Amino acid sequence: MPALTIIPIDGIPEVRPGDSLADLVVDAAGAQRTPFQDHDCVVVTQKVVSKAENRLVPLDPDDAAARRELVESESVRVLRRRGDLIISETRHGFVCANAGVDLSNVDAGSAALLPLDPDRSARRIRDIVRARTGASVGVIVSDTFGRAWRTGLTDVAIGVAGIAAVVDLRGELDANGRELHVTEVAVADEIAGAAELVMGKASGLAAAIVRGLDVAWFRDASARDLVRPTAEDLFR
Amino acid sequence: MPALTIIPIDGIPEVRPGDSLADLVVDAAGAQRTPFQDHDCVVVTQKVVSKAENRLVPLDPDDAAARRELVESESVRVLRRRGDLIISETRHGFVCANAGVDLSNVDAGSAALLPLDPDRSARRIRDIVRARTGASVGVIVSDTFGRAWRTGLTDVAIGVAGIAAVVDLRGELDANGRELHVTEVAVADEIAGAAELVMGKASGLAAAIVRGLDVAWFRDASARDLVRPTAEDLFR
Repeated sequence: MPALTIIPIDGIPEVRPGDSLADLVVDAAGAQRTPFQDHDCVVVTQKVVSKAENRLVPLDPDDAAARRELVESESVRVLRRRGDLIISETRHGFVCANAGVDLSNVDAGSAALLPLDPDRSARRIRDIVRARTGASVGVIVSDTFGRAWRTGLTDVAIGVAGIAAVVDLRGELDANGRELHVTEVAVADEIAGAAELVMGKASGLAAAIVRGLDVAWFRDASARDLVRPTAEDLFR
Repeated sequence: MPALTIIPIDGIPEVRPGDSLADLVVDAAGAQRTPFQDHDCVVVTQKVVSKAENRLVPLDPDDAAARRELVESESVRVLRRRGDLIISETRHGFVCANAGVDLSNVDAGSAALLPLDPDRSARRIRDIVRARTGASVGVIVSDTFGRAWRTGLTDVAIGVAGIAAVVDLRGELDANGRELHVTEVAVADEIAGAAELVMGKASGLAAAIVRGLDVAWFRDASARDLVRPTAEDLFR
């Protein structure tokens, strides 16, 4: 079985509203001599997607009331509050802290909101990578979420294009020939987390290539596949 | 920044109670000419650790009452029930489905329980790898858990040795020189998930090497670091 390689893409400049993020990623990959290949999966962080799509709003970081109001306006449901922390559900169905509103790595006095349609953001990058390089890649837009019960943050997928979000192994046989009853693997989340290992939080890297994934995973999908329907969710 | 490589270790034979799993892993890595290097992180699945440590108990898979009783005996607290599914907290503090009791890839008529002390299991493997190969590696024991709010399973760390579970980036500066207030990254979970991408569920692969991680992460730690204290947990 071949190895998986995760290649950070360095040298993406500070992203400004209106920039073509896909072009910046293609240029940076080219500059470091990492040409895209078919069945590469390109992971880009929500932060640079939000900047390119001008999902920035003015916010005084010291104005707790304004911050709370902004988080609430980005939420369709608040699950928990503790101090300044709000755990809520976004319009996309994601449950996360502060509705994904983010202050870090953004210019002082502004906050970055989640992309309106992260799948569409991913598709746009996928289309431009294909047009410019000929390579058919998957694209994941990643963000950093907390979890219930476990400390620490991990990167997960909030948008996908051309790569499965969840791979359903139900019905396949395990090594003893017994049916695997439920094995739906959230591969897009695992790919996003793997990319985070090379991007880090403080280094400002905004994209990575994951190379060597199962080619069967490259297909149409949506990050909505990762949202547990409320009726099945025991913790919402 | 260098790339990360994830190398599946193939050819580990069926693990039996009393086997030295570390020796099987070292032998298999040697057979495929992947000698261990300092700062490799070796990920092994809970399933083979539990088999080697004889954490197997007889269980008729069709006896729902016996299965429920076993899950309850492995739990310190039940959070939710739905049909046959129990979400509970194990003695280790992990919240997962069915207290980690597992029927797949186990001989018919038996179930695998979680290792009693997965950190110790990881340490034992780390010690033997060092004794046999000279390489100082990190070791993660991984298991496949579901999540609140998101569909699909991901692999996470239930035991660690010689590798950080959580890396605390609080207080480091982001690319704009602003303090990152909270960025504790659950790197061991991300490493476990990355390894899962090459091991898969149906293929029976039981170990992988993750090579190229930040050397600063190689230090003493415990998977207990990944358990959110109950008092801080808004969902327990």
